[in-house]
Amino acid sequence: MTDINKQKVVLAYSGGLDTSYCVAYLKHEQELEVHTALVNTGGFEKSELKMLKEKALKLGAASHKTFDLVEDFYQKSVKYLIFGNVLKNDTYPLSVSAERAFQAMEIANYANQIDADYVAHGSTGAGNDQIRFDMVFQILAPEAEILSPIRDQTLSREQEMEYLSKHGIKLEWDDAKYSINKGLWGTSVGGAETLTSHLPLPETAWPNSLSKKQPLDVTLEFEEGEIKGLDGSHMVPVSAIQTLTSLADQYAIGRDIHVGDTIIGIKGRVGFEASAALILIKAHHTLEKHVLSKWQQYWKGQLAEWYGMLLHEGQYLEPLMRDIETFMEQMQRNVSGKVHLTLSPYRFQINGIESDNDLMNSGFGDYGELNKSWSGEDAKGFATILSNQMKIYNTVHNNHD
Amino acid sequence: MTDINKQKVVLAYSGGLDTSYCVAYLKHEQELEVHTALVNTGGFEKSELKMLKEKALKLGAASHKTFDLVEDFYQKSVKYLIFGNVLKNDTYPLSVSAERAFQAMEIANYANQIDADYVAHGSTGAGNDQIRFDMVFQILAPEAEILSPIRDQTLSREQEMEYLSKHGIKLEWDDAKYSINKGLWGTSVGGAETLTSHLPLPETAWPNSLSKKQPLDVTLEFEEGEIKGLDGSHMVPVSAIQTLTSLADQYAIGRDIHVGDTIIGIKGRVGFEASAALILIKAHHTLEKHVLSKWQQYWKGQLAEWYGMLLHEGQYLEPLMRDIETFMEQMQRNVSGKVHLTLSPYRFQINGIESDNDLMNSGFGDYGELNKSWSGEDAKGFATILSNQMKIYNTVHNNHD
Amino acid sequence: MTDINKQKVVLAYSGGLDTSYCVAYLKHEQELEVHTALVNTGGFEKSELKMLKEKALKLGAASHKTFDLVEDFYQKSVKYLIFGNVLKNDTYPLSVSAERAFQAMEIANYANQIDADYVAHGSTGAGNDQIRFDMVFQILAPEAEILSPIRDQTLSREQEMEYLSKHGIKLEWDDAKYSINKGLWGTSVGGAETLTSHLPLPETAWPNSLSKKQPLDVTLEFEEGEIKGLDGSHMVPVSAIQTLTSLADQYAIGRDIHVGDTIIGIKGRVGFEASAALILIKAHHTLEKHVLSKWQQYWKGQLAEWYGMLLHEGQYLEPLMRDIETFMEQMQRNVSGKVHLTLSPYRFQINGIESDNDLMNSGFGDYGELNKSWSGEDAKGFATILSNQMKIYNTVHNNHD
Amino acid sequence: MTDINKQKVVLAYSGGLDTSYCVAYLKHEQELEVHTALVNTGGFEKSELKMLKEKALKLGAASHKTFDLVEDFYQKSVKYLIFGNVLKNDTYPLSVSAERAFQAMEIANYANQIDADYVAHGSTGAGNDQIRFDMVFQILAPEAEILSPIRDQTLSREQEMEYLSKHGIKLEWDDAKYSINKGLWGTSVGGAETLTSHLPLPETAWPNSLSKKQPLDVTLEFEEGEIKGLDGSHMVPVSAIQTLTSLADQYAIGRDIHVGDTIIGIKGRVGFEASAALILIKAHHTLEKHVLSKWQQYWKGQLAEWYGMLLHEGQYLEPLMRDIETFMEQMQRNVSGKVHLTLSPYRFQINGIESDNDLMNSGFGDYGELNKSWSGEDAKGFATILSNQMKIYNTVHNNHD
Repeated sequence: MTDINKQKVVLAYSGGLDTSYCVAYLKHEQELEVHTALVNTGGFEKSELKMLKEKALKLGAASHKTFDLVEDFYQKSVKYLIFGNVLKNDTYPLSVSAERAFQAMEIANYANQIDADYVAHGSTGAGNDQIRFDMVFQILAPEAEILSPIRDQTLSREQEMEYLSKHGIKLEWDDAKYSINKGLWGTSVGGAETLTSHLPLPETAWPNSLSKKQPLDVTLEFEEGEIKGLDGSHMVPVSAIQTLTSLADQYAIGRDIHVGDTIIGIKGRVGFEASAALILIKAHHTLEKHVLSKWQQYWKGQLAEWYGMLLHEGQYLEPLMRDIETFMEQMQRNVSGKVHLTLSPYRFQINGIESDNDLMNSGFGDYGELNKSWSGEDAKGFATILSNQMKIYNTVHNNHD
Repeated sequence: MTDINKQKVVLAYSGGLDTSYCVAYLKHEQELEVHTALVNTGGFEKSELKMLKEKALKLGAASHKTFDLVEDFYQKSVKYLIFGNVLKNDTYPLSVSAERAFQAMEIANYANQIDADYVAHGSTGAGNDQIRFDMVFQILAPEAEILSPIRDQTLSREQEMEYLSKHGIKLEWDDAKYSINKGLWGTSVGGAETLTSHLPLPETAWPNSLSKKQPLDVTLEFEEGEIKGLDGSHMVPVSAIQTLTSLADQYAIGRDIHVGDTIIGIKGRVGFEASAALILIKAHHTLEKHVLSKWQQYWKGQLAEWYGMLLHEGQYLEPLMRDIETFMEQMQRNVSGKVHLTLSPYRFQINGIESDNDLMNSGFGDYGELNKSWSGEDAKGFATILSNQMKIYNTVHNNHD
Repeated sequence: MTDINKQKVVLAYSGGLDTSYCVAYLKHEQELEVHTALVNTGGFEKSELKMLKEKALKLGAASHKTFDLVEDFYQKSVKYLIFGNVLKNDTYPLSVSAERAFQAMEIANYANQIDADYVAHGSTGAGNDQIRFDMVFQILAPEAEILSPIRDQTLSREQEMEYLSKHGIKLEWDDAKYSINKGLWGTSVGGAETLTSHLPLPETAWPNSLSKKQPLDVTLEFEEGEIKGLDGSHMVPVSAIQTLTSLADQYAIGRDIHVGDTIIGIKGRVGFEASAALILIKAHHTLEKHVLSKWQQYWKGQLAEWYGMLLHEGQYLEPLMRDIETFMEQMQRNVSGKVHLTLSPYRFQINGIESDNDLMNSGFGDYGELNKSWSGEDAKGFATILSNQMKIYNTVHNNHD
Repeated sequence: MTDINKQKVVLAYSGGLDTSYCVAYLKHEQELEVHTALVNTGGFEKSELKMLKEKALKLGAASHKTFDLVEDFYQKSVKYLIFGNVLKNDTYPLSVSAERAFQAMEIANYANQIDADYVAHGSTGAGNDQIRFDMVFQILAPEAEILSPIRDQTLSREQEMEYLSKHGIKLEWDDAKYSINKGLWGTSVGGAETLTSHLPLPETAWPNSLSKKQPLDVTLEFEEGEIKGLDGSHMVPVSAIQTLTSLADQYAIGRDIHVGDTIIGIKGRVGFEASAALILIKAHHTLEKHVLSKWQQYWKGQLAEWYGMLLHEGQYLEPLMRDIETFMEQMQRNVSGKVHLTLSPYRFQINGIESDNDLMNSGFGDYGELNKSWSGEDAKGFATILSNQMKIYNTVHNNHD
């Protein structure tokens, strides 16, 4: 299928209308040999992947490659998002944005490997994804020129379908009302209402609907910050996440709307449903409150916020990211134990934790109770000394005010 | 009632067993003239206040004074907690801890005013409250010596009741299973399960129970960061908070358990129910996401976290607090608009906002849509330049790695 | 001089070779009516300004305008750089970068005022200045298109001189070895050695040379953070800065080399000489150490670092900047007093301060001395309580390690 | 020498009047068996150590132990102070405060080892040292009770000498005008002028005086953040520090006065001379500016500031400290290269650096010069996109202002 006279392009392909248009456009108008590549970070079933390959070839791709990156995505990203309890703007678990960097890196490496002259993506010019793709492509595949037909041409969906049709491709395309992205760490839902500031998404727009009402108790087991078990069964983290997702999705847990600042300076609003992400983060966070010191929690929070922001903004390759990962990993040495919780329709609650490293109930002294490790006199002395600077300030300022 | 030969003590009085014991103890054992003072920050009805006064006098107080501080508490504290979206450890709206400083300040001023020789509180030696009282007393009433009988003697409830009984005081005391504190900004519930790490509070421990199931849409109106209206009615903030509380308490909204580091270094765990606080903070925060710049949000978050921490830890009088208040107030100049939300059993959701200052949907450029304010070329250039440092880093480290 | 058929451009003009070339180029090649504007932020004498006007007109400018912005530059920028003790990378007082924003804003306003079709600057494509100009122009004069001939054409100095010569302009141009920028807040020196990583600037490259060796004692007087007096004479801040500069430049004080990250991601290295800036910042900082609380200093440091970074990176118009100014201004309420220092060849030392707001030596308690405000027992209690969390941590981890 | 009926105390002994008094007091008044321990962190010569041992035994110590901790102090503390470029309040390299924690830890371990009933120090009640000793003793030797005779008794120097004399001990004591502490990382000088806010230390108070005037070029070599060579000779870090100290002390480099907030809330002022510390920190920092990314520098600065603060405040055992050490160590992987500098009387200057990891001059693009890695168009696009949020803000606020 490879034509030695033709220049090669690797296209980040998702099977949607935009990237399908790109296949045809890059082949027919740019006269390139199009190698489509699809990176699965948890959103696709095997059968879908097979179907998408067939579709790509039918659209004119010279070759199609599927990369299964779920484990890698967990190890290099989701793990740290849990370590950091990362919720962008206190809300969004980065369900989609975290995946893009990994997809882009795999595509860039593939382009290098087959000596592609070009590397292409199907993002528009008004979102975060274009920057995430562009940056990773530029850094890891600097020899390949970047093509972005959708951004350059700003066509409507109708125009794209018409173009494909002209080239003999007649396919069913999803209703365009919502743009949906699914991965291991959640599903995002954008379009219609999310383009306004004041409207919520209707019930029908959400990927899952309520199918179970009876509350369910669940116990999660963490080992050094990683989820390694659920209700007594030991599992690798990816399986635990997937199992928890299946359980919690029945309760339609984990919906919210994220309003954030895009990398390019405009505000964006997007719905998401991410039951496992929200549960794991709150469970992990609660465990940390018991086993980390006050200032450990504070500083991990600080660094994790930037970890999330830089990842969201396409800067996974910033060297600071590796330093933050090391810092968070080191701190997770004590984050082991069980977290008990209850799933209910549309919500969950954390019931409590058990950990050998619990700094509460250590036999040392109990909150609000009699204690043997310090006296009332010690507490008085503490308050006296801690007041010193404010007392001096008040004295100085009353004297000459 | 005042005996000129006797030394005076002002006692921070709440009407519970501990402070009731203190009245009797300070009078009979310390032979002081006891002036009880109760500071209402929103937890007491008028009838209760009257009853508590009678009780104090019956216990032997030489005088009793009630201070109604709800408006003051809002103006000097709750307002800033909303401006700052303050949730301690991402969870707790400081329902009780914020009030203590105000109660302590009022008590200290009163002690100064009546030239008290002593000022007393009923806190134990194992919590935050003792430090909050001690510090404010030391700073504002440095001439009055601090007494803290409960901390010093570490008696059981039975011993306290026996002592009162011996002095002829036979009253009904609440079941001691839970210690409950109520104020404008929420109710805390501590005891039994909260003394463990693993148990949740039972349904019966919560102050409110579910009494309404039909979801209810509510619209809040903010003016420069302050809540000034609800469903079209203009209200002063305290009324709006109280009205919202009545509505949301019917849905049993706002329950959670806070696990935190006390000022004295031990971990503490406490349940709370704070419907209005949680709703107002999430509503206000959502509005801010639309009207503030990315870095305004970031830095207000940073300073607000410390505002909450210092307030929680009894350092309301730290001069930095006034600087942070000024900073937050200045930033609220644009935080005006409506927030639409829906109350449901045990939960609420923010539906959207409307604001003249909305930086989204400003006609400038829309997220994910075609735009006229910048081109695809601009975005490419942006990504290119933003990649520069990482490209250099990769180049340098590939060359000699 | 105005031709109604011609389109107008306002050019940010400095009188150097690059902007001189721009005058001729914009006139002859772009056929625009060129209105030169020079914004003085303290680097030019009156006679120079007159000469530069004549030069601009000789080069073909349709009009020339001089804006004297020294006072405005102080009030809107230098003042806050002192409040914040701003030293980029702990070294550089932003001698040049702070001025650019003000020059750009004045140029943009002027362009709006005369309804210019274009606004132009003479920056290259490899530094910070282009971004500073571009951003301010885009934000404040969005209707005017930006022209940047030097960035677009990348000519050598020889080519520029030849072009001017071709158009009959034969002028003496400075030796190009160093590019020198002078303003109220210091002088930068770039070129030759600063383009390497390892070479220092030679003695001859520095603007001032040592002319006085006898040490000189100086007393500075601050009022609410602003420099208002020197050696007993009351002065407005701009005069005090200029007077201090004259004194300290004789000692060749304030030289260093700044190595920093440019906005565009590459590293830059530049020499600077900024005697008054370095002295005022260290003096002001020392005074603050005496009058501010520990956490006031910490948080002002945090915000000031960002104030400096955003200003350096051309983001003076970010709304957060106004919030930080308010915060710093509020905190300066106590920063009044005298600072004593000594100037010596190539260096200065702070000798001490005097202030009514001094929190040291307040009669409260002295460092290392006996005291009456707290006892040894209080200090013991303080240490005991402050050890609590670490004691618990050690206990928990020794028990099961 | 050990009396099985007597209780044992380990005393942190320095040989000064205060700790000498403690030996006699603990022996005669408390009737304890006194085991003196001196921990050398670089301030003592061998001959001094011998003499101090004899003195301790003469004073009545049952045994005396000398711990040589210089290498350990470097490995566990000074190394990280260099990694972090730690200057407290932008001034003080923690010359003394860093040592105290290590001395206290060694003393605590020794007390555990010999099953001491008590552990004692000679600090007053008005400084930082008491808290540093108390905290480490409480955490690491919780079974030993802490004694602090100087803090408890608040005697004058005359009273102490009289007491010793009464017990037959007649020794020469240093003039008490200045309290001097010497260690590997510098010497502190407190007393007389430093107890005021306005006076500098006189020339005679400084430990070293100017003995060399001819400027000297020096080259330092760093490997992964550690100083490993000087002027071409490879050295272990402790030797390099000592060698640099000998060279630089001849120029009387590294003097300044630190004004800081003590742990106990009062302000303290102390002179210090720390030539090697100030030179190494500025040299290391300059190297980092060349090899670390912008955000790596920012975040290391943030964490290092806390590392210094917690160490200064006696919290070396806070678990966060280990996490920060890991973070800083990880980031030092690229901090290798040479730093060239010149020593002159009372000052030094950094001339430049050489490093394989230099991100400047990488052949990628030069500051202010033509470049090939991006175009003027890219820079324009960057500025356009970076302006977006401010443009929107200005549009929104001009429309309805």
